[in-house]
Amino acid sequence: MPPEWSSSSPDLLLAVDRTSGHPLRAQLEHALRDAIRNGRLQVGERLPSSRELARALGLSRGLVQECYAQLLAEGYLVTRPGSATRVAGGAAATSVTVRPGTIAPRLLADFRWGVPDLRSFPVQDWVRAMREVASHIPTEEFDYGDPRGTRALREVLAGYLRRVRAAVADPEHVVVCGGYAQGLGLALRALADLGVRTVAFEDPGSPATVTAAATAAGVQAVPVPVDELGIDVRALAATDARAVVVTPAHQWPTGVALAPARRRALIDWARDRDAFIIEDDYDAEFRYDREPVGLLQGLEPHRVIGLGTVSKSLAPTLRIGWMICPPDLTEPLAELKHRSDRGAPGLDQHALARLIESGRFDRHLRRMRSTYAARRAVLLTALSEHAPELPVTGLAAGFHAVAHLPADTGEHHVIAAARAREVGLYGMSACRASHAGAPAQLVLGFGNVTERAITTGIAAIGDLLTGRLKSTRT
Amino acid sequence: MPPEWSSSSPDLLLAVDRTSGHPLRAQLEHALRDAIRNGRLQVGERLPSSRELARALGLSRGLVQECYAQLLAEGYLVTRPGSATRVAGGAAATSVTVRPGTIAPRLLADFRWGVPDLRSFPVQDWVRAMREVASHIPTEEFDYGDPRGTRALREVLAGYLRRVRAAVADPEHVVVCGGYAQGLGLALRALADLGVRTVAFEDPGSPATVTAAATAAGVQAVPVPVDELGIDVRALAATDARAVVVTPAHQWPTGVALAPARRRALIDWARDRDAFIIEDDYDAEFRYDREPVGLLQGLEPHRVIGLGTVSKSLAPTLRIGWMICPPDLTEPLAELKHRSDRGAPGLDQHALARLIESGRFDRHLRRMRSTYAARRAVLLTALSEHAPELPVTGLAAGFHAVAHLPADTGEHHVIAAARAREVGLYGMSACRASHAGAPAQLVLGFGNVTERAITTGIAAIGDLLTGRLKSTRT
Repeated sequence: MPPEWSSSSPDLLLAVDRTSGHPLRAQLEHALRDAIRNGRLQVGERLPSSRELARALGLSRGLVQECYAQLLAEGYLVTRPGSATRVAGGAAATSVTVRPGTIAPRLLADFRWGVPDLRSFPVQDWVRAMREVASHIPTEEFDYGDPRGTRALREVLAGYLRRVRAAVADPEHVVVCGGYAQGLGLALRALADLGVRTVAFEDPGSPATVTAAATAAGVQAVPVPVDELGIDVRALAATDARAVVVTPAHQWPTGVALAPARRRALIDWARDRDAFIIEDDYDAEFRYDREPVGLLQGLEPHRVIGLGTVSKSLAPTLRIGWMICPPDLTEPLAELKHRSDRGAPGLDQHALARLIESGRFDRHLRRMRSTYAARRAVLLTALSEHAPELPVTGLAAGFHAVAHLPADTGEHHVIAAARAREVGLYGMSACRASHAGAPAQLVLGFGNVTERAITTGIAAIGDLLTGRLKSTRT
Repeated sequence: MPPEWSSSSPDLLLAVDRTSGHPLRAQLEHALRDAIRNGRLQVGERLPSSRELARALGLSRGLVQECYAQLLAEGYLVTRPGSATRVAGGAAATSVTVRPGTIAPRLLADFRWGVPDLRSFPVQDWVRAMREVASHIPTEEFDYGDPRGTRALREVLAGYLRRVRAAVADPEHVVVCGGYAQGLGLALRALADLGVRTVAFEDPGSPATVTAAATAAGVQAVPVPVDELGIDVRALAATDARAVVVTPAHQWPTGVALAPARRRALIDWARDRDAFIIEDDYDAEFRYDREPVGLLQGLEPHRVIGLGTVSKSLAPTLRIGWMICPPDLTEPLAELKHRSDRGAPGLDQHALARLIESGRFDRHLRRMRSTYAARRAVLLTALSEHAPELPVTGLAAGFHAVAHLPADTGEHHVIAAARAREVGLYGMSACRASHAGAPAQLVLGFGNVTERAITTGIAAIGDLLTGRLKSTRT
């Protein structure tokens, strides 16, 4: 779309060559025609005023006006009295082909996981926080900054994580990053530099994300099974891993909390093995029971890299996360962050600090907790009505649940049949490193699904979830 | 600093164990005392209201009130009528030691290069753009997005780069990234995946940045000399490099524009060698002569990766850059960006698109062009007065110049002597890969130095620049 110019004239790069012997007017006409024909100037785009262009090129204004008049006559340009000169319709080439984006089909309900309620993102609070900080940020903060992030956000985050997550957090050892994926990538590279050759990850978990980050860091990734108490620490100890990626507060995706004995065993493993724990605290803000689970990081700050993000608590689009670093790793992690992109955007960091400091972040979390709690209740009601035999687990926190399909049901079959009824379902297979003998399960995300859509969606597919339809469809 | 709570109560993670046999009130008191003693709750921090905490823990409000009363009595907490309960001064541990940041000494003038005028960053325009887009962004844009960046910014950037930089730019092949350093890192990794083993860079140039990015990508970096026509393409062809990082519009740091014959030779080299050109267009917005130099990318879009950034045109803190990708490289670069951090922050991208679209970006550039032109003139006047014999080059664009010190002067000597007079100078050595026989030069940045500071600063050190003081000091 063409720019909308406020009061001032746009820039335009055109060249005239005073040494070529060709008349300057002919050169300028030629350059303008070319810019329009090859699509550099598109239909409707405004040209600089003749005065501006004359000044920029060191030509007389009369000469530029003559050129514009010529191109108006030729139909390349249009103008109206009192209005700017613009590129005429039909004059520009169509060499720049713009492919339409892929448009997701409309679904009755889409139980995609990993997305918070996007409609609730407090965009006005965010803009307000940005506005409040904008006039007070010292000038030098517009420069390249500390690669760990702004002092203001590191202080506020450290306080928040101590208070709400029982972290041992010192602003000096917090590194702000661009979300979980970047934090994981940097952590694995720092550990690789310490000689770590193998990293373990939970199965089920996020095999694709961990494996991609590990490969980029030159580290091997091996799966370790998760049972109803969390990651199997004995199986972990049987690998040669010297690092592990875990989700202790609310295991992704099974939803179990790492049992107290396992928490201790995991920390003992790290101490005995001289190993590191990468703790992914992705959705701990949203718990529905009264068993708050603090960070492992608070128990062993020298061996745990604590990763967090606002992707679930606010919105993925912000791309803000953090690492609570073991003191010896802060320097290498800050250096890797610096090499990777010089540090996180400063104004966004100030805005997040302000949002937390003002109490509006906690207020948003409380609001979202009741939103998600209500959706969770609606989901359970709908399931108990339309799929009463279906076991559902992992609901103590977050905004997803695991539905256990009947033993002889195929995940893919259910997902395809639901899609034909315009309901988006997602299988546990995508979270598994090892598929042999794995039970058929669905990961039902309800973060970004309205109560109404949950009810309609489950009503439409209840029969598929309990296998009742199987005989009639196959 | 403690959070300032608006209307609502802060969250606090505390645990009580109903199965332990210990009285709940004693447990809660113990947990609160611990949180204060170990610094999780700091002096002045506000506690949740007794009602909120009771609800969160599933306890009676009376029990929580009794606990608070006990801790008030013990001096851990303070309260005033009608005000919240807070952590008392002197109660919290001081285990969290906050080291003071390194404070740069005040200088009369600091000719550090690479920094635009930070006071001029149009922070109000930025916030206004953010506010204007905030209410119109479709909800789904708060989700993880296209790793290439938002459609809106890619379209606006492509139009801008076609218009102002003569780029061949299609929104489909623009990837938004976190500034030049990230763009370079991603480009080198993509080229490494294509089998590129060696990348060349300009000498003088940015040896540290290129070498660090190359090492991370598993690629070797080799210097190629720059002369008064730009990079020596014959010397480049004598290396086994299949990629080169260049600054054709305004060579960093010498300031020469790549001569027309060299531009052609460089493109021929890339075609003959099946090689790629990484074009760093870092400060082309600011030219003072009338010889606009378009992007190399516009001449050979299949072999040039065009990198740009707002770090010089707006401010480094925004951390927004872009890559104009050869069509075959768009997919791999988008995939690498996705793996690295899932994509650039969305709201910032919308704000930048709006800033450009509204014409306020071009207006800012015009304003800055005259600011820098005035500083440049003041610098030249000051130098002609206080160091009349000093040759100065590289002033056709940007906001730095190269000062050629007398043959028998040492860069380090001049820099140290200037620092003693509270003037920050920076040597060319930092930009050189090969130091043997290199002439003593200074890179004088004037982007972030006021006219007054330029005058005062040069007056204070003029004698050092022409070597007049040497005999009296050594």
